[in-house]
Amino acid sequence: MSKTDLNIFETMESEVRSYCRNFPTVFTQAKGHNMWDEDGKEYIDFFSGAGALNYGHNDEKMKAKLIEYIQNDGITHSLDKATTAKGDFINEFNDVILKPRGLDYKIMFPGPTGTNTVESALKLARKVTGRTDVISFTNGFHGMTIGSLSVTGNSSKRKGAGVPLQHAVTMPYDSFVGEDLTTLEYLEAYLENSGSGVAIPAAMIVETVQGEGGINVASSEWMKKLDDICKRWGILLIIDDVQAGIGRTGSFFSFEEAGIQPDIVCLSKSLSGYGLPFAITLFRPELDIWSPGEHNGTFRGNNHAFVTATAALDYWKDEAFEEGIKERSEMTHEYLEYLVQEYPELKGKVKGRGLMVGISCEEPELASKVAEEAFNRGLIMETAGPNDEVFKLFPAINIEKEALKQGLEIIEESIKATVKAPVAN
Amino acid sequence: MSKTDLNIFETMESEVRSYCRNFPTVFTQAKGHNMWDEDGKEYIDFFSGAGALNYGHNDEKMKAKLIEYIQNDGITHSLDKATTAKGDFINEFNDVILKPRGLDYKIMFPGPTGTNTVESALKLARKVTGRTDVISFTNGFHGMTIGSLSVTGNSSKRKGAGVPLQHAVTMPYDSFVGEDLTTLEYLEAYLENSGSGVAIPAAMIVETVQGEGGINVASSEWMKKLDDICKRWGILLIIDDVQAGIGRTGSFFSFEEAGIQPDIVCLSKSLSGYGLPFAITLFRPELDIWSPGEHNGTFRGNNHAFVTATAALDYWKDEAFEEGIKERSEMTHEYLEYLVQEYPELKGKVKGRGLMVGISCEEPELASKVAEEAFNRGLIMETAGPNDEVFKLFPAINIEKEALKQGLEIIEESIKATVKAPVAN
Amino acid sequence: MSKTDLNIFETMESEVRSYCRNFPTVFTQAKGHNMWDEDGKEYIDFFSGAGALNYGHNDEKMKAKLIEYIQNDGITHSLDKATTAKGDFINEFNDVILKPRGLDYKIMFPGPTGTNTVESALKLARKVTGRTDVISFTNGFHGMTIGSLSVTGNSSKRKGAGVPLQHAVTMPYDSFVGEDLTTLEYLEAYLENSGSGVAIPAAMIVETVQGEGGINVASSEWMKKLDDICKRWGILLIIDDVQAGIGRTGSFFSFEEAGIQPDIVCLSKSLSGYGLPFAITLFRPELDIWSPGEHNGTFRGNNHAFVTATAALDYWKDEAFEEGIKERSEMTHEYLEYLVQEYPELKGKVKGRGLMVGISCEEPELASKVAEEAFNRGLIMETAGPNDEVFKLFPAINIEKEALKQGLEIIEESIKATVKAPVAN
Amino acid sequence: MSKTDLNIFETMESEVRSYCRNFPTVFTQAKGHNMWDEDGKEYIDFFSGAGALNYGHNDEKMKAKLIEYIQNDGITHSLDKATTAKGDFINEFNDVILKPRGLDYKIMFPGPTGTNTVESALKLARKVTGRTDVISFTNGFHGMTIGSLSVTGNSSKRKGAGVPLQHAVTMPYDSFVGEDLTTLEYLEAYLENSGSGVAIPAAMIVETVQGEGGINVASSEWMKKLDDICKRWGILLIIDDVQAGIGRTGSFFSFEEAGIQPDIVCLSKSLSGYGLPFAITLFRPELDIWSPGEHNGTFRGNNHAFVTATAALDYWKDEAFEEGIKERSEMTHEYLEYLVQEYPELKGKVKGRGLMVGISCEEPELASKVAEEAFNRGLIMETAGPNDEVFKLFPAINIEKEALKQGLEIIEESIKATVKAPVAN
Repeated sequence: MSKTDLNIFETMESEVRSYCRNFPTVFTQAKGHNMWDEDGKEYIDFFSGAGALNYGHNDEKMKAKLIEYIQNDGITHSLDKATTAKGDFINEFNDVILKPRGLDYKIMFPGPTGTNTVESALKLARKVTGRTDVISFTNGFHGMTIGSLSVTGNSSKRKGAGVPLQHAVTMPYDSFVGEDLTTLEYLEAYLENSGSGVAIPAAMIVETVQGEGGINVASSEWMKKLDDICKRWGILLIIDDVQAGIGRTGSFFSFEEAGIQPDIVCLSKSLSGYGLPFAITLFRPELDIWSPGEHNGTFRGNNHAFVTATAALDYWKDEAFEEGIKERSEMTHEYLEYLVQEYPELKGKVKGRGLMVGISCEEPELASKVAEEAFNRGLIMETAGPNDEVFKLFPAINIEKEALKQGLEIIEESIKATVKAPVAN
Repeated sequence: MSKTDLNIFETMESEVRSYCRNFPTVFTQAKGHNMWDEDGKEYIDFFSGAGALNYGHNDEKMKAKLIEYIQNDGITHSLDKATTAKGDFINEFNDVILKPRGLDYKIMFPGPTGTNTVESALKLARKVTGRTDVISFTNGFHGMTIGSLSVTGNSSKRKGAGVPLQHAVTMPYDSFVGEDLTTLEYLEAYLENSGSGVAIPAAMIVETVQGEGGINVASSEWMKKLDDICKRWGILLIIDDVQAGIGRTGSFFSFEEAGIQPDIVCLSKSLSGYGLPFAITLFRPELDIWSPGEHNGTFRGNNHAFVTATAALDYWKDEAFEEGIKERSEMTHEYLEYLVQEYPELKGKVKGRGLMVGISCEEPELASKVAEEAFNRGLIMETAGPNDEVFKLFPAINIEKEALKQGLEIIEESIKATVKAPVAN
Repeated sequence: MSKTDLNIFETMESEVRSYCRNFPTVFTQAKGHNMWDEDGKEYIDFFSGAGALNYGHNDEKMKAKLIEYIQNDGITHSLDKATTAKGDFINEFNDVILKPRGLDYKIMFPGPTGTNTVESALKLARKVTGRTDVISFTNGFHGMTIGSLSVTGNSSKRKGAGVPLQHAVTMPYDSFVGEDLTTLEYLEAYLENSGSGVAIPAAMIVETVQGEGGINVASSEWMKKLDDICKRWGILLIIDDVQAGIGRTGSFFSFEEAGIQPDIVCLSKSLSGYGLPFAITLFRPELDIWSPGEHNGTFRGNNHAFVTATAALDYWKDEAFEEGIKERSEMTHEYLEYLVQEYPELKGKVKGRGLMVGISCEEPELASKVAEEAFNRGLIMETAGPNDEVFKLFPAINIEKEALKQGLEIIEESIKATVKAPVAN
Repeated sequence: MSKTDLNIFETMESEVRSYCRNFPTVFTQAKGHNMWDEDGKEYIDFFSGAGALNYGHNDEKMKAKLIEYIQNDGITHSLDKATTAKGDFINEFNDVILKPRGLDYKIMFPGPTGTNTVESALKLARKVTGRTDVISFTNGFHGMTIGSLSVTGNSSKRKGAGVPLQHAVTMPYDSFVGEDLTTLEYLEAYLENSGSGVAIPAAMIVETVQGEGGINVASSEWMKKLDDICKRWGILLIIDDVQAGIGRTGSFFSFEEAGIQPDIVCLSKSLSGYGLPFAITLFRPELDIWSPGEHNGTFRGNNHAFVTATAALDYWKDEAFEEGIKERSEMTHEYLEYLVQEYPELKGKVKGRGLMVGISCEEPELASKVAEEAFNRGLIMETAGPNDEVFKLFPAINIEKEALKQGLEIIEESIKATVKAPVAN
């Protein structure tokens, strides 16, 4: 096969394209934690599709199931008609995930992407409560369609809306205003004081760890208190677990550590296991007051994704799996702490939880430079935060430890190359 | 394999589920125009995933390409990084579709569903013009996320938003107020009169044939005049070709008949050819003022869809293909006209263009009853229109003529069974 | 007293000032239909404070009552505390106006200006119905605060809002799209069709004759049909009678001719009789679900206005009063018809009802030029319409007939001077 | 004259009426600090029309000027045409108020009420900056029309809107979240962090002392810092001085103490001196980019108010006048501090600045009960705060000291009567 001309993307694809600018090569194959480009260069993937490939690329078991399904002409597309593949997924998800965690949720298929599940969650919360406003949090990221964008903090994304974004009030996330100021005191003052200008909202929507926002972690204590506040005021708590869920922080749901049971949960990204478009919205059965078809969409039933998602749940049947994530997390955190100590030029700070981690550098260009150097050395890694001040490590949660170590070492080399060189402005 | 318990959907899946209510069985396999359920019952599919399966189910050529790709561990998920599969799709789409039609468009990958492409189109139009309002049309359907929903006409879907829908003005679609009243005269009066309360909008968004809205057809003359109005006032014309595009009306784009070149085009549904989630937004290169990443999303790069979409374009290399759609359209229209004549109890009216057709019945329950009878007889067909007053035929555009005939005959039998029986209220 | 330097207005008053630009002199005294400037020049007033001085300037009887009240240190300002003057007004308004017309309304004091009454009417309609949208009409004018502005048609006024104006849908006023097209057929189609994108609104707000919008008259038939539509759909009908009310069209309320009883009525401008700030909102008692103080304001109780408004009601005790307005209307209409015939260069059309009349000229500059010439000849008259294409006659409704005739003759002279001269661009 | 039947208000006036419920009698005359009802009962007025009667009722000098003007048939109503009375006011306001304070402002006549000036200020700020959002503050009160209401904090007033209130973000006023938390640190964090979800606004609108909100005082230090923040970010600072201005806090403008020069100032209430509807908007000349007539209104030119307002400015020519307010303030504050000490049952806290003061009681019913007892004893006084927890003293700023003392003593008696009696729930 002839090589692809990179020019085609520049001339034919919209200027809105993004990641291909940071990783300027044409990828062709992938397996586990590795990707290869058309030149045969091998990369370790610490990006994992921004959390869409938590089990690595093209997992063998899922692959076998998927090929078998396609070969047998299993239903591919069926809108939301009942199919065998869908029934299997629902059963397995209930048995392997919900029941063991004592979670009693109904499942909605809102369309195959993160923003679909968020929009459906916001709609439902407004319908159930009859209220319009939603409280979101600083540096939250929930998607690019107008409903999700209205609860997203990033100013350049918001400007892209082209219309004023409404019916949302942004409250300070944990530690937003320095470490000492308790942001929930502020939030509560707004709810308690009837002259505050902030109405009791339909819902609060929050990520337990903010990915795009800069790997900001809400403490379990903060999450519990937030849950209490929601209960006290009759506000629905929506956890957007699109990026932090499916094992990324160590457990299937990211909110397990805090010991809370949200009213509504948004899942997508790694849910299919194989990187296929797939999302679900979970909610307490009492909230299920939807009319048939009130929220619909063509790709609510991506059967290929049902097949791989069902296969992916096998991982969670083995308790050792979570243990494995924990080990990898500890390895990673330790190494990152070492890097921050060893390279004070970074003015770095380790952020994150589980395998959703990064180093925040005081100088924004530094993080981008480190990521660029890493790419040149065969490691794929993105940056995050309002000023791209964080380099962000998202290895597969089942990555071979040797590969993890190798990736971390590449980062160290990239830091060395960066802090020694003069930083470009 | 044991049979799936239909109960699982009732107890575990949200009340929002819809099509599984009309087609209450568990489907397991599909090929071409056929579907089979777990009982082995065979169905002819005149629904085609609401236009997502224009080439039928599990097309052999696409299937082979897809399995080969998966077997070789081709990249599955890559955000919007450059991949061989993506490059191939862009090249082929340009060579087979755009260039031969004299269309100079850039391609944006806005996320894999119809509502993603619509939201991106609206954002871009607002960004380019600096205006906020968009004119949409009565009975238009553009998606369920807040931006798309604001330009969607259906009142029950709109109520589902839970917030007022804004920045959109609904103008009357072709023939909305009776056949005689020229709706564009009304529209122009609003634009011309500076006291009309309607500002010059960023864009108009329109379907050439409204699917969900009731198989309403805008005449070529109306479309041309609309295009003229847009040009005269510097308003961008967005054609939402998600349902009417990809051959459904006879040509690749539904607007080819009218001889216009829209500023922005939204495509999804059958774009992947295989029923996989996939969407693109096309626009004139001068409009491409996006900042990198200003609109993003996890599933912009569904490489499986790139592979099958590229294979699907093969159909369009053969001129006989469009001819074949035309023949099937004529067969269908003739048969529907015959049905309307033969069964005056329907008080029916044939609607539609190409293979996007239906019969509108004055009594709303009639259409649903006919569809129900058809399902019992092994034909899958949905209803449309604000009161579900239309039964809607969406056979594969390359369906075998024998199967098409067979399906039409089932419809006749279903009508017979319906109009003879007393209509339930 | 030294003369006022006109410069002071240019240097110290905001650029937003308007009428002082068209009538560039400093006025100092006024009586009945006359005004005088500091140079002692006398003017006939065909402007009447845009309808705020229907009884002419400084009416002797009202003046006497007002001076007596002030001399006795009657309450001037009292928020909405009960005062003798307020009680007298309420009693008299009920006895002289409401009861004889069979109108059972409660009275709200919403603040002293037209926009205050409109905002209160919109709030109440939304509160009563629980709906958010309001239908307004093309070229309607209802005020400059955001709520009223959202139902106002004029595009330059709307742009002044600086924010998108929402929760309002503009429907075509009588004869908006040419004489032949029945605009209410459009409106009904929008209400009937559940896919129209237009929800059943809380209310419709309409002027029976549009003043600012260009002296457009809704026929009694159109008004009756509109009232029917509102009743059929449970929509509240708000008549904004701020400019057309208080005798301007011949009867106290402008809607008496159509024989309808609106749900809510907005009054201001000439209500005080003396040109003092004063407004009330009337509504059916069943609608009075306000909470105490839910809408408030400092100047709800302008007692000086109560005093003069009560005195003004004396006029309506004499049936000859309405007869007198009718005579003056006929005189005026006849003369205007004569002018249109006599001066075809105007391409004029007589518009209006009662003493709310004007001539619309096809060339917009013509109307302004005629008004300018009239001012030079001692007649004060404004222009209206989206392009200021109408010169607008608003004489006092009790103007001496001789003065009316004199004013009309000045208009003829001004037309002569204008159509003979070349029109400036 | 026969006595007014209080029933007329109950049967004919809307339920929205408010103050007449707390002061259930019919007032008939007023002079200085006294009011009398129809039974001849005399009251001391510590309410002063909620700040609209800072100079007391029916001031003799203003009264004489007004009667003379009316007797001479001076122009009463003139829209915004130039009049002698208007010219005189502009000159005098410039000479007596603006120039001596080094303020270079243009004057806009936006309509005669507080909400008119606020709406005009918001429009202008949005027009000048091209931005839509405005930052307002918790417990702020700016008016009842939709634009002003959107920046008002009170939840029951906001609900009255019937539509979501938008384009405003409420930030914490000085000391909102406890005494220790610096609210401006929060505000700055929102502006600085590009992921905060809060865009740089067009303006901030703030009262230096919040009247309706509960007599909350912003410290001079806080105001200065707010002004700095505005300047740093290019945000316009709007001071709503409708209630706190015109001497209420000791100086003509309430912001003089802080030493700042706001970009835009809103004045109304006591501006006319006599309790007549009147308002102006002041702004830096560079901001005056209004188009002629872009914001208009019928009662922009209330000439009676020009006459009394001009006369009222005489007070400010004498430096002893401000000194007199200061003395009365000190007397009042001392007495209130004494009351809080003496009656610990109040759990009271003295609030306010100048003669805009009150006592906040921890038990909300207490404040209302004290006000009720005071009314029975011949003192008129209202309550404020989100839960009416403050009784609010607004004596005339030139009240005779003896009367002030007498009023304070009535308050003490009312407290005694209240704290001894069991509090009703």
